[in-house]
Formats: sequence, C-alpha cells, structure tokens
Amino acid sequence: MKKEKGKARFEMVKKRHYSTLKKAEREKKMDPQLIKLCDFIAETKNYFTSSGCSGRIMLLGLKGKTKRDSYFHKKWHSTVKASDVWNALLEKTSGEIWFKEEPFILHIGTNTLKNAKKILKIKDKSGVKRGGIIVAKKGKFLVELVGTEEIAFPVKRENTILVEKEFIELIVKKANEKIKRNYARLKLLEKNLKKGLSK
Amino acid sequence: MKKEKGKARFEMVKKRHYSTLKKAEREKKMDPQLIKLCDFIAETKNYFTSSGCSGRIMLLGLKGKTKRDSYFHKKWHSTVKASDVWNALLEKTSGEIWFKEEPFILHIGTNTLKNAKKILKIKDKSGVKRGGIIVAKKGKFLVELVGTEEIAFPVKRENTILVEKEFIELIVKKANEKIKRNYARLKLLEKNLKKGLSK
Repeated sequence: MKKEKGKARFEMVKKRHYSTLKKAEREKKMDPQLIKLCDFIAETKNYFTSSGCSGRIMLLGLKGKTKRDSYFHKKWHSTVKASDVWNALLEKTSGEIWFKEEPFILHIGTNTLKNAKKILKIKDKSGVKRGGIIVAKKGKFLVELVGTEEIAFPVKRENTILVEKEFIELIVKKANEKIKRNYARLKLLEKNLKKGLSK
Repeated sequence: MKKEKGKARFEMVKKRHYSTLKKAEREKKMDPQLIKLCDFIAETKNYFTSSGCSGRIMLLGLKGKTKRDSYFHKKWHSTVKASDVWNALLEKTSGEIWFKEEPFILHIGTNTLKNAKKILKIKDKSGVKRGGIIVAKKGKFLVELVGTEEIAFPVKRENTILVEKEFIELIVKKANEKIKRNYARLKLLEKNLKKGLSK
C-alpha cells in the first residue's frame, strides 16, 4: 500500500515536470546547453529534471542585501565580448552592479534511493564538485548538481564604474575560459548520464 | 546480519573521526568558529563531522589552471583590514593572485537515511542553500553543508596589482560584510543542530 503511494506520487510529479519542460522548450525559455540533457532525462522511466541553469556570465544589479532585491542588468548563456560588457556598464544603472560568472545548476528527480545513488555516482564520475541528495521522501528523491567555476565582485556603484577597461578585458577573458570549462563539464555530465541511466 | 555490518562500519568511522577531531583541536588546526559545533556533534550518538572550513577571506595564488596548482599567499578566518590585504599584495608573489571570500563547508556523517534527513531538515531551516547527501551507503551517510556568500576575482598578475587601492578598500568592506553573514549563518546552524539532534 505504502509502496503504491510512493509510486503514484512519483508518476504524478514526473508527468508534471515533463509538461513544464516541453512548455519551456516551446516558449524558448530553456538554456540551449540543457535541452538535449533534459530531453534525454524526460524520456527515461525513472528520472525527471525539475529546474536548471546551464551557467552564465552576467551583470547583476543589487538594490538591497539579498538575492530577492536583485535584477539582471545583462546576462549571457555563452562566452561574451569584453566590449559588450563594457558598453553594458556604460548604460545608466541604479544601485550596485556585480560582475558574475556562475556555474550550471541542475535538479534531477527520481523515485528511489537506489536511483538517486546512481546520479551521485555519475556526479562523482563527471567531476561535478557540489550538490547531493536534497530531498529524500518516499517516491520523491531530488539530486542537486552544481559546477564550481565562479567569478563574483562589485563592478559599478550608482553611476561609477569601479575598475579600468583593461581590467574588464582581463576579467572577461577569465570568465570566458571558466564558462567554456563549465559547458565542457556539463557535456561530460550529459554523456555519463546517457551511459549510466537506463531508459 | 547485514544490519550488524552497517552498525560496525558506522561505529568504526565515528571513532576514527572522533580521534581526528580531538587531535586537530590539540594541535590548534581547527577553525575556531567550528570547534563548539564539531564538539557537540562528536558527543552525539549517531553523528560525526569529517571535515570542514568555517569560511575565509584569502589571497590565493594560482600557478596553473586547477586548484591543485594553487597556494595560500594569505588567509584570514575572520574579518580583515584593507591595509593588511593591500600590504600582502605589495609583497613579492608569483603567478596569478585571486582575492577570495569563501563560505563555510561542513561534512556531517551519520548511520541511517532517517538521520541524514534530519540534517537536511536542519540545513533548510537554517537557510543553508547548498549541499545535500553526498554519500549514501549502509551504515555511512554523509551530508555536505555549504554557505553561499562568495567573492572571487583575479587581483594581481606576476608583480602587477590589477586594481586601485580604493577598490581593495571597497572589496574588503564587502568581504567583511559577507564573512560576518557567513559566520552568523554558521551560528544559526549550530543552534539548530543542538536543538534538532538528540545526543
């Protein structure tokens, strides 16, 4: 009886996330680097993805101390040109602007601890440093996977840019190297998921 | 029989980590902000800590692309003076130096999934954003807990400091704010662990 309840919960949750994924793809709201991976997971019997970001370079505006008070001044899900970043900094902004390069984050759901452990194994094999099982309920296990490549610092305050153009050029070079390594890691994860999870 | 094997493994691992912790404390190798928390965990019946860092501000030297090729030019497990950071930057260094403010990371081990889930619950209650169950074996579950406050950017290359002194002053102010929030989060986690885990 209890087992059936867990199974029913899993089927319901998987179905719901399948619809959300397909809707996001139709509306072009998916990060392109995640589409193939998420499509593969969606077609497996025992797994689903619930949310994710492929990793990005951005200028994040902060109006207060918490993430809730933040806004995207600009974001790129790819490498970027230093001139594009510099021009975006020249635009009128308010509050504090942070330059950020952030790694991917992905949530994979499954039905049993045994299957969650398969994801952990693939995480380790793919050299994904951060994350783990964050939800462990009957019929619903959720594994978080997070990369590590990161840059973060305040770059502008009110309308004053805090660093030289040459520094932005150097930072963008570093950020591009990191985002490329991040996408390569994501590709490796995708490959290992395809190999390690039976449909 | 299987249950006994899991129990034996847990007792052995807990005992080993107890010795390691006490040795680190005797040799003053423990981050001071973690001592009380780890001491409490060590005295519980079902939990142990295996490793951790309370969070820090540092100047990290990079000689290659990976963390393996890095060295600490300077590190502080506390707030820091901008003049101390600036003076450290004026010292002779090699390779690339990154300014970093990193959050705490803590590993708590336990014997059953049920007890690992208690840690997850306390993690969520304490607003600790990153981490999860990273090892799930019979008799050995390991939960990783990681804070989120982070600053990271290259600040010096060979012997050229890449930013102005005023920028370092602003960055150190931000880093101090973040490290204070980080330690406050760690205190809250400690309080909730003490409340939530029976001895």
